[in-house]
Amino acid sequence: MLYEHLSESCLTARIGEGGLSAEGLRHALLATGPALDRLRAQQRDGSLPLLQLPARGDDLPPCRDLAADFRARFSHVLVLGTGGSSLGGQTIAALVQRGAGPPRDGPLLVFLDTVDPQEIEALTAGLDLARTGMVAISKSGGTAETLAQLLVLLPRFEAALGRAALARHVAAITEPADNPLRRLAGRYGLTCLDHDPGVGGRYSALSNVGLLPALIAGLDAAALRRGAAQVLTSTLEAARPAEALPALGAAIAIGLLNERRVTQSVLMPYVARLDSFGLWYRQLWAESLGKDGTGTTPIRALGPVDQHSQLQLYLAGPRDKLFTLIQLDTAGTGPTVDPGSSPDLAEDPALAYLGGRHLGDLLDAMARATAETLAKHGHPVRVLRLAKLDEEVLGALFMHFMLETIIAAELLGVNPFDQPAVEEGKVLARRYLSESRP
Amino acid sequence: MLYEHLSESCLTARIGEGGLSAEGLRHALLATGPALDRLRAQQRDGSLPLLQLPARGDDLPPCRDLAADFRARFSHVLVLGTGGSSLGGQTIAALVQRGAGPPRDGPLLVFLDTVDPQEIEALTAGLDLARTGMVAISKSGGTAETLAQLLVLLPRFEAALGRAALARHVAAITEPADNPLRRLAGRYGLTCLDHDPGVGGRYSALSNVGLLPALIAGLDAAALRRGAAQVLTSTLEAARPAEALPALGAAIAIGLLNERRVTQSVLMPYVARLDSFGLWYRQLWAESLGKDGTGTTPIRALGPVDQHSQLQLYLAGPRDKLFTLIQLDTAGTGPTVDPGSSPDLAEDPALAYLGGRHLGDLLDAMARATAETLAKHGHPVRVLRLAKLDEEVLGALFMHFMLETIIAAELLGVNPFDQPAVEEGKVLARRYLSESRP
Repeated sequence: MLYEHLSESCLTARIGEGGLSAEGLRHALLATGPALDRLRAQQRDGSLPLLQLPARGDDLPPCRDLAADFRARFSHVLVLGTGGSSLGGQTIAALVQRGAGPPRDGPLLVFLDTVDPQEIEALTAGLDLARTGMVAISKSGGTAETLAQLLVLLPRFEAALGRAALARHVAAITEPADNPLRRLAGRYGLTCLDHDPGVGGRYSALSNVGLLPALIAGLDAAALRRGAAQVLTSTLEAARPAEALPALGAAIAIGLLNERRVTQSVLMPYVARLDSFGLWYRQLWAESLGKDGTGTTPIRALGPVDQHSQLQLYLAGPRDKLFTLIQLDTAGTGPTVDPGSSPDLAEDPALAYLGGRHLGDLLDAMARATAETLAKHGHPVRVLRLAKLDEEVLGALFMHFMLETIIAAELLGVNPFDQPAVEEGKVLARRYLSESRP
Repeated sequence: MLYEHLSESCLTARIGEGGLSAEGLRHALLATGPALDRLRAQQRDGSLPLLQLPARGDDLPPCRDLAADFRARFSHVLVLGTGGSSLGGQTIAALVQRGAGPPRDGPLLVFLDTVDPQEIEALTAGLDLARTGMVAISKSGGTAETLAQLLVLLPRFEAALGRAALARHVAAITEPADNPLRRLAGRYGLTCLDHDPGVGGRYSALSNVGLLPALIAGLDAAALRRGAAQVLTSTLEAARPAEALPALGAAIAIGLLNERRVTQSVLMPYVARLDSFGLWYRQLWAESLGKDGTGTTPIRALGPVDQHSQLQLYLAGPRDKLFTLIQLDTAGTGPTVDPGSSPDLAEDPALAYLGGRHLGDLLDAMARATAETLAKHGHPVRVLRLAKLDEEVLGALFMHFMLETIIAAELLGVNPFDQPAVEEGKVLARRYLSESRP
């Protein structure tokens, strides 16, 4: 197993009346049966392309070629896109690209998901465009922010390097059907990869949308899919819903909503590299379930820093939250805290408890203590425990939460794949833009 | 006024039954009276040191001296601290330090608020320690994460530069009373500034805890306090609670909780530089109000990117959220989107609506459309509108939300200044650390 899923602290048997009753869990698990059956059928007949992604290989060579070319020539690659066109790639790149300096390997990926003029300037000022690549990602090809970014930045590349250079510096990922981004790519001769029309943005991390950034960052794209495949197989082949971990997770979340009005789902990794994973998860859960007046609010937290920010509310506020901690086995790793190296420090009893411990010991102890304290206060908490964090495990986490979300949608009776409400705001924004036409 | 506070879209008169009734608002506003009176008395008698901060000047010279010295000698300054010892400084530094490159002016501030070993390595690897400074901030002087970071990093400085150099590279901010950090500073001869004992971490952004990082980043610390002073004065001198904007905000939030079970408070700036402000706000609101089984959950969002992530849930999910949008007047600013510069692009009708618009126009239209659409769907939404964003306005925002939080606590009947529940987890983490002693 690429991860352990410890969820007994979600149950009344363990935490009292803040938890899910045995009856409630049984009922919710039973209801996941049809969702699992449907997923099995969809995998067999190919009608849900997301489920085919882990086994796909045909789409990787063009990504590999483009990534190898960009890696060889560029120090920076701008990734234009928003929401599902950006968060999977950000999450994957965060495995290796951290901190303020240039990455050890390959170009720095700079994700542009804003139209804030000052932010665009801050992120692009001073770039040596001769050593900069750009990838614009939009499934529909009509995303206003992404097109606006591209129409601002293309002229800069053209001014600096000439029109002919655009085709060597800029690529796009969009659906095969005709659309503004595809037409734009055609006019400038940009490399254009096909966005799978059957895979929505928030489910696209394991498609070229996530794998191209992964490959540019020097990561193993096949391993991401391998980890996802393991979770998909173990879920669909599980003998009982309780052994299909994403079904178990969905049953707990929706069971707690129905039985205890648990309306918030807090994802709290104790792994800094998974901070972006929280952003990805929060789109997935919110946009898939938040409709028809239902859904629960996904909340992105991070340990241990949020012990000094959110934990007071989590422990002593209303009992309306389900906690999912992600814990990496870090005991015994990292630099050692050694007050003993200085004789006068060794004498300070207030520092003695840190003596000889690794930073990873401290992180490990804090994660365990938070899970235990939440449970002791009667809050439902589950822990995903990872022995390591690499591409394979990240791919497993992606698939776990995508399946959990799809199954939760079935339990709520909503469509996990649409987002009908956001259209209205887009139309209104266009109208405001037109009304203020200079 | 440094900001406009538009809140009519929180009321039933404007948005229907999802809003706060006139009677509910009147009742909640009436209840803010004693809170405002108490704040006035505390300002007069000096018993709440937070309220004295805007007018203080005595604590700035030592910050200015230290900052000038660090700015002259260092390319990087590590700021060690967590929660309230970090988030104010991060928020302030984000005004000017954005993006991947080195800042235009002064050293890059690197905030360390984790003990994740890989993250510490990623953030400190490759630093030229001869050109690096370090500030450790802990009010109590006993924060495990901060001490562990310091005890890992001090030996590195010592190994690279010698023990005598530590006093020139490392400083601390902690309470005057004896504590582990102060003893450590004493042993190594570090500059040690006093953390005001009467100002808790989450209320410390306008103390040296926030102002030292501000000054190192080259910002105007006095302007931050000037903006805060304006809000404090206008709030305490308001003739009626409805004109004291933080009281009005608190009345709306708690009124909606009591009348409509609005349990989540979404802060959604349409300003990328205020993304960290959301982190600061979320600690302030959660830790101050989340106790005795009450409080509402602060949620950090960012526009426009979260239109592609959270807006579906916000519009079509449960009516359990109050939205606060922060909008900066950006119309007419930033680079121009000009599909007309290329004849073949000018012909694309799908791009025509972007033609000739500034990125700031697009941002502005999106913020207005989101506020309008939320209101149209019956969700309470208020807008803080800023004509500009600088130190003075940020100081005003800090003070607005601190006062709003304190007044909201009064309405809920909880103490805004303590965080009793988090102690238990700390004790347990220490025990786990002891049990696993090597």
